[in-house]
Amino acid sequence: MENAVLITIGDEILSGNTIDTNSNFIATELKNIGIKVSQIFTISDEIETIKNTLRTAFEIGDLVITTGGLGPTRDDKTKKALAEFFDDEIALDEATFIHLKNYMEKRGRGDILERNKEQAFVPTKSTVFQNQYGTAPCMMMKYNNKLSFSLPGVPYEVKPLIKDQIVPYLKETFSLQYINTRIVSVVGIPESVLADIIEDWELSLPQNLALSYLPVGTRVKLRLTASGHNESVLQQQLEQEIQKLFPLIGESIIATSEDKIEKILGELLNEKKLTLSIAESCTGGELAKMITSNSGSSKYFVGGIVPYATAKKVEILNVSQKTVDEFTVVSEQVAQEMAKGCQKLFGSHISLSTTGVAGPGKGEDGKDIGTVFYTIRINDNEQTFRLYMPHLERLDFMYFVSQKIIQDLIGLLINNQ
Amino acid sequence: MENAVLITIGDEILSGNTIDTNSNFIATELKNIGIKVSQIFTISDEIETIKNTLRTAFEIGDLVITTGGLGPTRDDKTKKALAEFFDDEIALDEATFIHLKNYMEKRGRGDILERNKEQAFVPTKSTVFQNQYGTAPCMMMKYNNKLSFSLPGVPYEVKPLIKDQIVPYLKETFSLQYINTRIVSVVGIPESVLADIIEDWELSLPQNLALSYLPVGTRVKLRLTASGHNESVLQQQLEQEIQKLFPLIGESIIATSEDKIEKILGELLNEKKLTLSIAESCTGGELAKMITSNSGSSKYFVGGIVPYATAKKVEILNVSQKTVDEFTVVSEQVAQEMAKGCQKLFGSHISLSTTGVAGPGKGEDGKDIGTVFYTIRINDNEQTFRLYMPHLERLDFMYFVSQKIIQDLIGLLINNQ
Repeated sequence: MENAVLITIGDEILSGNTIDTNSNFIATELKNIGIKVSQIFTISDEIETIKNTLRTAFEIGDLVITTGGLGPTRDDKTKKALAEFFDDEIALDEATFIHLKNYMEKRGRGDILERNKEQAFVPTKSTVFQNQYGTAPCMMMKYNNKLSFSLPGVPYEVKPLIKDQIVPYLKETFSLQYINTRIVSVVGIPESVLADIIEDWELSLPQNLALSYLPVGTRVKLRLTASGHNESVLQQQLEQEIQKLFPLIGESIIATSEDKIEKILGELLNEKKLTLSIAESCTGGELAKMITSNSGSSKYFVGGIVPYATAKKVEILNVSQKTVDEFTVVSEQVAQEMAKGCQKLFGSHISLSTTGVAGPGKGEDGKDIGTVFYTIRINDNEQTFRLYMPHLERLDFMYFVSQKIIQDLIGLLINNQ
Repeated sequence: MENAVLITIGDEILSGNTIDTNSNFIATELKNIGIKVSQIFTISDEIETIKNTLRTAFEIGDLVITTGGLGPTRDDKTKKALAEFFDDEIALDEATFIHLKNYMEKRGRGDILERNKEQAFVPTKSTVFQNQYGTAPCMMMKYNNKLSFSLPGVPYEVKPLIKDQIVPYLKETFSLQYINTRIVSVVGIPESVLADIIEDWELSLPQNLALSYLPVGTRVKLRLTASGHNESVLQQQLEQEIQKLFPLIGESIIATSEDKIEKILGELLNEKKLTLSIAESCTGGELAKMITSNSGSSKYFVGGIVPYATAKKVEILNVSQKTVDEFTVVSEQVAQEMAKGCQKLFGSHISLSTTGVAGPGKGEDGKDIGTVFYTIRINDNEQTFRLYMPHLERLDFMYFVSQKIIQDLIGLLINNQ
């Protein structure tokens, strides 16, 4: 059990209506038990296409996981394709029907509908993994020495099925090779320069270690993956190789294990016992969301404010109207006053502020789209930065700016220690 | 030029490190010019795999778009695979080199690096589309009567290449069939019940119309896609079919053209000349972000606050400490007082508030993970709701709750008119 293939079924992904987040989740969970996803097929909800893709998938991988196409509506055809592919028939499964009935009754919908009853019909050769958060069951099929699982497409049904049932099942049934991953976060060095600096190191990595470059905003994540049969040996190997990076780029490394920037920040703030607050305008809540997406952020995050209307910057954050009139609301000066007011409002050690024009409409004062000023205030010290990124779409802009600010704050905290 | 195949190249997607957002963007843009994405392949950065997938892709589609694997680092192999597949050689392209030099000089990096120079090497048979926001060029190749484009993987380089160069090129070069799409947003009816109610309508749809069900939280989006050679006929057809839905489910329809809930809300608020503010705790900024992600939201969104620490709910929003002590911070009463304080702080017509436990850690007062209370306050009227969703991961929880609140607000605004 080494190679997995994912099949995402559904026209909503191909049409651009929905972003496929299931594959990402499943790939991560499988990686943790040493199974590598070698391909992902995203296909439409047609019986012939599903059957052909199953055939190809079983040629490539030992494990095939399909998501989608199991809803009760007319456009879902996965189950029929499964039965045809495995030369099987669909029949009512008693256990699944009872589970479904209980599920519906618990939700006050005891009058089980005919369409929902269809959900309890499965291929007779399948082993059913019951879905605790929806009506479509997960079906496991055997194909020679290989396995397939067919799941519904709804992400919050997929996650518990994978995590609580499929991964434990695979772990127990097969003896799997360990895979360990470490992420080294590097800031302030462009990818191509970084590649030059660490070229010799990269070429001398042991055979069972693989390196990838993942640029995120102005940060480059180096992902080191090691595979083998002894987990503690892998951990040692990774640690050894990462230590060799420090003489080369030590000052630019902001983390060597954690991947998510909000988590790196959280650990630093906890360690230094510092609290944080935010006043954000052009990032519109994204920065607060990024910080609070880290579980445990209530330990250091006091609060945030999104004073979208200029009058609210003045009223709540004490930005002076004179400053706004003189320099416009998208200015270094307003960013500074926002940070100061925010620090006072929330009584935190650190405050961050953003003011800018996310576009595509021009800002009130005619400042160029893509311009942003942000201030990082730590106790009585502050620094203000300007970014200009006219090429980013609105949401990407909000995301990029938020990432950059957190990254800069981490840099300041590390270098001031 | 009818069918496109997308190939996403890169181990960072297969490993679960990155979510593929490019495919979604490209599929949407192509749909608008009548090109349907019929499959997406996500593959690893290996020359043989890339070549094999190109072969399959050209069998399925007239247009093949690859993203990824064009960076200057050692793990990018797309260009080599392209040259081998098209039986071509890689050579320095003068125009691309000059473009690259200008690009670097503009960014104060005139000392063009050897590794970056490699970016100006392309297959000799390719037509280059210059990348305005990065160093990797986009290469077009011809294959019989078919076309391929190879782009870098960075989303903010992909977007302008597709939008400003490739889509206009395809539009001009081919005479394409029109595709029109309308989305009908339905709330308050579960998918399976909805399917029963509109079954006859669905079965009587004209041949050139296709229907899909897309559940998002507790909303179901009905997507109607029409294809044909006369755009105004398509528009009429769609409008006619949508009108037939009103006698069946009219009261549950919250929008018939707009897809994004934040945009539906924005249009309603503008129409009714109402302003909005937010006090969010467990959604941590996601709700504000969702609302501000709509361009033009500054017309109705006055501001938001994320009073994460309980003390800040009391100090800034005037929540009474007594209420907190008596009912705990995650309670109906605190949600109500937050909404009231928020309305006053920002001076808006409408205010929304959230308080809950996003997990995975327990809340301060031991309330169950997944519990949330939210209040919608419109002028002097308010309603408070409770949700319990223990199965959602932290970020999904924040997203789901935010979607639900906006949806409920829309429902209230529509039914109070």
